[in-house]
Amino acid sequence: MTVDEMLKKYEEWTFKKSAYMMALSIINFDKMTVAPAGGNEYRDERTAFLSGELFSISTDDEMIEILSKLKDADIDPDIKKSIQMEYKDIVEAARVPKDFYIDYQNLVSTSHNYWLKAKQEDDYSIFEPYLKQVIEKTKQMYLYMDPETDPYDKMLDSYEPGMNKAKYDDFFGALKESVPALIRKVVERQNADDSFLYIDYDIEGQKKFMEHLLKYLHFDPEWSYQGETEHPFTDWVCENDCRTTTKYLPNNAISAILSTVHECGHAWYAHNVDDKYDGTALLSNISFGMHESQSRLCENYLARTESFWKANYPVLKETFPEQLGEVSLDEFVAAINVARPSLVRTESDELTYPMHILIRYEIEKGLFDGTISTEALNETWNAMYEKYLGVKVTSDREGILQDDHWADGAIGYFPTYALGTAFAAQFMYQMRKDIDVDSLLENSHYDEIMKWLRENIHRYGCRYKAEEVLEKCTGEKFNPEYYIKYLEEKFGE
Amino acid sequence: MTVDEMLKKYEEWTFKKSAYMMALSIINFDKMTVAPAGGNEYRDERTAFLSGELFSISTDDEMIEILSKLKDADIDPDIKKSIQMEYKDIVEAARVPKDFYIDYQNLVSTSHNYWLKAKQEDDYSIFEPYLKQVIEKTKQMYLYMDPETDPYDKMLDSYEPGMNKAKYDDFFGALKESVPALIRKVVERQNADDSFLYIDYDIEGQKKFMEHLLKYLHFDPEWSYQGETEHPFTDWVCENDCRTTTKYLPNNAISAILSTVHECGHAWYAHNVDDKYDGTALLSNISFGMHESQSRLCENYLARTESFWKANYPVLKETFPEQLGEVSLDEFVAAINVARPSLVRTESDELTYPMHILIRYEIEKGLFDGTISTEALNETWNAMYEKYLGVKVTSDREGILQDDHWADGAIGYFPTYALGTAFAAQFMYQMRKDIDVDSLLENSHYDEIMKWLRENIHRYGCRYKAEEVLEKCTGEKFNPEYYIKYLEEKFGE
Repeated sequence: MTVDEMLKKYEEWTFKKSAYMMALSIINFDKMTVAPAGGNEYRDERTAFLSGELFSISTDDEMIEILSKLKDADIDPDIKKSIQMEYKDIVEAARVPKDFYIDYQNLVSTSHNYWLKAKQEDDYSIFEPYLKQVIEKTKQMYLYMDPETDPYDKMLDSYEPGMNKAKYDDFFGALKESVPALIRKVVERQNADDSFLYIDYDIEGQKKFMEHLLKYLHFDPEWSYQGETEHPFTDWVCENDCRTTTKYLPNNAISAILSTVHECGHAWYAHNVDDKYDGTALLSNISFGMHESQSRLCENYLARTESFWKANYPVLKETFPEQLGEVSLDEFVAAINVARPSLVRTESDELTYPMHILIRYEIEKGLFDGTISTEALNETWNAMYEKYLGVKVTSDREGILQDDHWADGAIGYFPTYALGTAFAAQFMYQMRKDIDVDSLLENSHYDEIMKWLRENIHRYGCRYKAEEVLEKCTGEKFNPEYYIKYLEEKFGE
Repeated sequence: MTVDEMLKKYEEWTFKKSAYMMALSIINFDKMTVAPAGGNEYRDERTAFLSGELFSISTDDEMIEILSKLKDADIDPDIKKSIQMEYKDIVEAARVPKDFYIDYQNLVSTSHNYWLKAKQEDDYSIFEPYLKQVIEKTKQMYLYMDPETDPYDKMLDSYEPGMNKAKYDDFFGALKESVPALIRKVVERQNADDSFLYIDYDIEGQKKFMEHLLKYLHFDPEWSYQGETEHPFTDWVCENDCRTTTKYLPNNAISAILSTVHECGHAWYAHNVDDKYDGTALLSNISFGMHESQSRLCENYLARTESFWKANYPVLKETFPEQLGEVSLDEFVAAINVARPSLVRTESDELTYPMHILIRYEIEKGLFDGTISTEALNETWNAMYEKYLGVKVTSDREGILQDDHWADGAIGYFPTYALGTAFAAQFMYQMRKDIDVDSLLENSHYDEIMKWLRENIHRYGCRYKAEEVLEKCTGEKFNPEYYIKYLEEKFGE
């Protein structure tokens, strides 16, 4: 076969994969937002079948052969890069026996159901046997994929290429040196009043404000859509189909707003990737840390600023005159920036957030090096929350059962949340050198900020690794000091 | 291969087809309700690919062989019936050359786009060349499928098994004898005031009433969901996943209500089919006339009655006190039953509706027997509207371009709308003998009516043909007199 013939086969294969990925993505979005629960079983069985079809296509023998040749051929560098990534994935995926893979998919489905049951009944012991199996089988799967590499290192790398335990140890080590001391300081000196954020905010009003906010964020219905789900997420089909969801809480003024800005950060990233990467690995394989860097950048470094609220607070106040009539802009901004150790990661503030992640990282590491076991892991969890955050966990539901990642076999994923936030601090430092962020926020030119992100970060997709993008954009390798300095300046005073 | 082995293959094949059908159904619902238009092209190309996959699976040679043996084997009669239907479909589909099929799919996509453009620009000539091709190619496709049968007869049969021109000529002949005279009478004597239905009804209020209505209809979120689209429709994935859509008009009190009851009629049908038919042809192949009989039954024979509104009018009045405060129940019911010749089928009343269909049927017949051509078809259309309905069509948009069926190649479909309405009259006559419909409607026991429909009609799916279900249910063959008598009694006084 000539290179051109191989490239044609490659193109057809990419298209075919992208068709199944599109279908699975839409079926998932539909399930999470609108599909009647009564049809879950019928749909899930068929969705699993279609996933299996995608797996078969993805691990096709002829394509492994073709990719192995194309990955070193003299071809367009973008395509070559995509092929190199896919070749690595396909070779590793093909090493997993198909029966094992199907059993594993069934295991994580079951495990998810038992996690949910355990959470509902507030009883970790219901979930423990499944978590134990998930840990074992996930380890086995990564060993199939790459027998040479430590499985947990391999998992960390699969969520954030280039990362491993040693690098994360350095990163979390640096955080451990400064964040706990900052938290102690903040706890001692806490005096901002944020109680007015947690009174009755009717959902109709919140939805009305959301219409304004989505316009401010230039979240254009031509390429985007916002639905509602229990757990907000972002899903993208292609450049011009990037969907998010949000969740409205009746007693919380800010939760839906910050989650919307966060998810729109993911959506803007997918939307801004160079459209020639549509349907290819260069869009779909963006690392979790890089994606999180963009959502966190928008949520923390834009939407928690005074400039952002100079533009938006008047509208919010007008929507909720009873609740906010007496609250000044300064008081409002102070309230949404209050840091306070708490039990639940997704509701935590900027300062304590990385400690929630650190705890999960240390547990994952311990589960794989054998120093921690799933037995009584809720107690281990509770002890670490007391140690790092000074809070007492009184229920499994708000303790170890709060997240579903482990139930789903997503191990090695959590650390990217903190890493992405640190990436964001470094990007933000550069952005503030290049453009007048505050003036743009204040004058409702959010799109100009997205434009800077597109030019410097988004458009590459995963043509380059996170560390390369960081260097291209900021002229410097990844440096967690930007993040630590940001936290110190913001919370140390 | 033993019969059991063949049955196992058949089961796998059915499951596989149902997975693709589920995906396509969800992708379509998503596109119609929420998907950003910017992604249409990307998604459409991939959706076409997945349709092609389904086509290949459906016309698999080995399966034709297996079905040809199973269709006469000594097996479960339900499965046998399903296989017989599928065998007929598969044999005919397999006769269509794949290239021709793909070209045809592309043609109808293009044709739909030009229909839309023509409608937007109110200019039939933009659409005419595509309609001409669609007519030719559709004819060709049906000739491939069955070279022995007149193509238009074949189309009619494909939407309503057992029907053909001769039978429809009888049916429409009977309607032509009585309906035009009734229309003339109604036009002369018209005195009910329905203008209050067409003032400002804010959409928020309509949505509030809809919450009540969906509860009244026992449209349970466990198996159903209602979205919003430009053109309301119903889509079903399985027994417990039946979705509908509706459309709210700001200056129309009744449009969203009647369309909701109509679509819920389709949804209840799909929901009530015996669940052992999930994923099989016995659910998915229900004829268009039978489906329409159930939606029309709910819309016309239930939701236009005084009993229905005894239960619902107080809530509607409470929702719109300014608009309906002075309107009595009698006046309201009279208003929603006003008959008045008009231009647009989907907004027409019960009495004039069949004439809209008759016109389309006569045009389709003429296009295929060569007595009518696509050239200046808008003028032919307009002349027929003047002849049968006494109205002058002044724009193509509200004339020949109002419906997209022909643009999509759906020829032979329209007649089922009138036929289904006639089926419904016959079913209704029997239902009123068996249960006290008015008392059930008045006392909010809509579910009891659905139960009667399930027992007597819905549960069979398409295990039996329409004519067999009619005979099972009413003890009589199809008899259009029930429909004509109903119209005469209602509008003749």
